[in-house]
Amino acid sequence: MAELVGNVLVGQSGGPTAVTNASVAGIISEALNHECIEEIYGALNGVLGILQEDLIDLASESQQQIRALRHTPGAALGTCRYKLKKQQDFERVLEVFKAHNIRYFFYIGGNDSQDTADKISKLAQQQAYELRVIGVPKTIDNDLSVTDHCPGYASAVKYIASAIREIACDNEAMGQGDLVSVVEVMGRSAGWIAAGASLAKRRDHPHDPPHIILLPEVSFNQEKVMEDIRRVLKREKYCLVVVAEGLVDADGNYVAAEGNTDAFGHAQLGGAGDALADIIGQAIPGVKVRVAKPGLLQRCAAHAVSKTDADEAFLAGQAAVEAAIEGETDKMVTLVRGDQEHYTSETGLAPLADVANSVKKLPREWINEDGVSMNFQFLRYAQPLLQGEVTIPHDMGVPIFARLDRVRVDKQLPAYET
Amino acid sequence: MAELVGNVLVGQSGGPTAVTNASVAGIISEALNHECIEEIYGALNGVLGILQEDLIDLASESQQQIRALRHTPGAALGTCRYKLKKQQDFERVLEVFKAHNIRYFFYIGGNDSQDTADKISKLAQQQAYELRVIGVPKTIDNDLSVTDHCPGYASAVKYIASAIREIACDNEAMGQGDLVSVVEVMGRSAGWIAAGASLAKRRDHPHDPPHIILLPEVSFNQEKVMEDIRRVLKREKYCLVVVAEGLVDADGNYVAAEGNTDAFGHAQLGGAGDALADIIGQAIPGVKVRVAKPGLLQRCAAHAVSKTDADEAFLAGQAAVEAAIEGETDKMVTLVRGDQEHYTSETGLAPLADVANSVKKLPREWINEDGVSMNFQFLRYAQPLLQGEVTIPHDMGVPIFARLDRVRVDKQLPAYET
Repeated sequence: MAELVGNVLVGQSGGPTAVTNASVAGIISEALNHECIEEIYGALNGVLGILQEDLIDLASESQQQIRALRHTPGAALGTCRYKLKKQQDFERVLEVFKAHNIRYFFYIGGNDSQDTADKISKLAQQQAYELRVIGVPKTIDNDLSVTDHCPGYASAVKYIASAIREIACDNEAMGQGDLVSVVEVMGRSAGWIAAGASLAKRRDHPHDPPHIILLPEVSFNQEKVMEDIRRVLKREKYCLVVVAEGLVDADGNYVAAEGNTDAFGHAQLGGAGDALADIIGQAIPGVKVRVAKPGLLQRCAAHAVSKTDADEAFLAGQAAVEAAIEGETDKMVTLVRGDQEHYTSETGLAPLADVANSVKKLPREWINEDGVSMNFQFLRYAQPLLQGEVTIPHDMGVPIFARLDRVRVDKQLPAYET
Repeated sequence: MAELVGNVLVGQSGGPTAVTNASVAGIISEALNHECIEEIYGALNGVLGILQEDLIDLASESQQQIRALRHTPGAALGTCRYKLKKQQDFERVLEVFKAHNIRYFFYIGGNDSQDTADKISKLAQQQAYELRVIGVPKTIDNDLSVTDHCPGYASAVKYIASAIREIACDNEAMGQGDLVSVVEVMGRSAGWIAAGASLAKRRDHPHDPPHIILLPEVSFNQEKVMEDIRRVLKREKYCLVVVAEGLVDADGNYVAAEGNTDAFGHAQLGGAGDALADIIGQAIPGVKVRVAKPGLLQRCAAHAVSKTDADEAFLAGQAAVEAAIEGETDKMVTLVRGDQEHYTSETGLAPLADVANSVKKLPREWINEDGVSMNFQFLRYAQPLLQGEVTIPHDMGVPIFARLDRVRVDKQLPAYET
C-alpha cells in the first residue's frame, strides 16, 4: 500500500452522546502518530461545515483540551441533522476536500451519517480522487447493525439505571402503596434505552425497580398495564414505571401524539410520560403520580459515563485512523465482543454500505413474556458495557468541560448556498 | 444539668433530600458516644411511625450500612407528609415515648416538621415528662428561617447547575440560533433552586447558560420573556431557560396549575416547563423547543451531592445529639456562616417556635434588574455551599446505596387509628 500523504478531516453528525467527543480525541491522538498526516482539521457542524468550508485546525488546540474531550459531552465540533441531497452537494464536498488536500475523512455518526460517508467515498472513487473514508459509530439508540453495540449507548443506559436507583430511594421513603413514579426515556422506534433501565435491578431481585418497562416493541394495553401497576402497588410501597417516548397503542399510534387532546378538548402537552400519568391518575383513584423526563440529560450526562463506553469510543477513533493509514476505505469501525465469559471487545471493520440505513432491533426474545421486563439475555448483553466510572474535574463545585479554541482554516473557495 | 438516661428516637419527615440520611448517620454515630443513651430507635415514616408504634432498632444496623447512609439519597427511615392535627394524636405520641422510655427525640425536617416537634415538646413539658427535643433542618427549598442555609439545598443546586453545564454542551452542538431548551426545576413559592441554576455560569461570563431564569418571585410577562429569548437566539446558538414550577402570571395564577393539593393544602404543581414550551413554540415560529423535567432527581441525585452539604448534614445530626445531652430542648440546629472571606460554618441553635411555619424568602435584591438572572450577592451566598464531591460506590456499573435491616422494636401499646 502506497503511503497517502495529506490532511485529515473529522466531522460529528446527528444527536450528540456523552462519549462522541472521546472518538474525536481518539482520532486526533492517533493521527498525530503518523507522518503522512500533515494537518488535522475539524468540520464545524458536520457536513454543513464542509459545504460552507467552515473548518478548524485541531492540531493547534491545547493537549489539555483534547484530553478533556474524553469526558466532555455534546459534540465539540458541532453537529447537524442536515442531509446531503443534491448531487451538487456531494460535488461541493469533494471540491472542498480537494481545496484542502483532505485525504482522510472520519465521520462520527449514526445510520444517516454512515450513508453520507458512503456516498462521498463512492463519488471520490468515481472522480479518481484518492480519499480514505472511515466511519465511527455513535448513537445512544444502539440501532446500528454490524457492530455489537454503539459507543454512547452504554452511558445513556448507565445514566438511566443510576437515576432509577436514586429515584427509587426517594420513592421508597415516600410511598405508602399509593405512589406511581413515571420516568420517560428516549427511544422513538426501539426500546434499547428503556430496556437498559432494567439494569437498575440487583441480580436475582426481579421485584426491584423499575417494576414496569413500557417498550415501543410491545403495544400499550391500557387495561393490562393498569392491572400490572395495581399488582405492584399491593406488593410494594410504590410502582416505578419506565416508558419509552415512542410507546404505541395496538393500532400503532403514539400514546402521546402531538395534536392529541384530553377529555376537555385541551391540547395535550408533554410526552408519553405525562400522557401515561394522566391515564394512571384516572384509572387508579387516590394514587399519586410523579413524572420525571430527563430529556437531553440522557445523552449528555457526563457524570454517569461508563468508562468502558468512553474507552471504546476513544479506541474506535484510533482504530479509524489506523485502518485508513493501512489503506482501508469505505468502512465503518465496529465493536466486536470477545467470546469469553469475561467481557472483552476489539474493533473491526464493516463496509459502510452494510451499515447505512439498516437498523438493529431489540431482540424480541430478550423481552420477558410479561412484556414489561427484560430477561437474562439482555442483562448478559448490556451489563458489561456499563462497567467503570469516569471522574470529571470540577471547578467551584460544578463540572468543567473542554472548550475548543476553534482556530479557523482559511477558506479557499467561493461561498456555497445550502 | 442532671444526666438524663433513656432512649433516642430519630424521625425523618417531608420530602427527602440527597443528604438527609447523612443527618441520621450523624445522630447515630454521636449517640453511640454517650452512656446515658441506652437504645437508638428510628421511627418509620416520621410521625406516622410514632403513632403506629413502628419503631426500628438502629443500633443493630451494621456499621457499613450506617456509613453508607452518608451517601444514600431518600429517607432511610421512611418519611411522611402526615400532619398531626388532633390533640389525641399528640397525646398518642407521648404515650409511645413513655412506653419506650424515649427521652431524646430528633426530628429531621422542614417548617411543618419543626412545628410538630415544637408541639410535642410543649406537650411533654405540660405533662412534666422529661424529654429533649431537637430539630435538624432539612429541605432542598432552603426556606427555613434562622439558619444560614438548609442541608439538602446545596446538593439540589449542584445537581441543577451540573445538569445545565451538561445540557449546554449538547445544545451548543445542536443549536443554530433556533433551539430553546427549557429545564423545569422545583420551587413552589420561592426561587431558591431556580436561582441556583445561575451557578452554572462561569465567573465573569454573564452570557453563559442559563440565559434566562424564570423565578416565582418575578411574575411572568410573556411578551418580555419572548423578547428576551429572541435576543439570546440572535447572540447565541441556543437559549437555555430555567423555569421554576411555581411560576405565576401578573394575576398571581400559576402558569401551570393542576388543581390538586397535598395534605398540607399546598397546590400540587407540574408542567410549567411544558406550558412554557407551548408558549414559546407559538410565539417564535421555526424554533425548536426541548423540555427536560428532572423531577425527583433534583432531590435524590447522589452523584451530584456537595461534600460541604453532606458534611454539614452529618454535623447537624451530631450537634443535635450534643445539644440534647447538654440539656437543650425545643431547639433546632442551625448552620451559622463564619464572617471570614473563606467560607466556614458551625452549628448553632434556635428555638423551634422561631422556625416553625416561618419562611425565608429569596432576597429580591439578589435578583438582577432584568428579572431573569442573579447578581454577585447570590453567587457569594450559594457558591461556597457547592464545594466538594462525594464518591459513590458502584457495583456492576450502577451506584449502590444503604439498605437498613429495619429490625422492629416490640410494640408495647394497643394499635392506634390514624
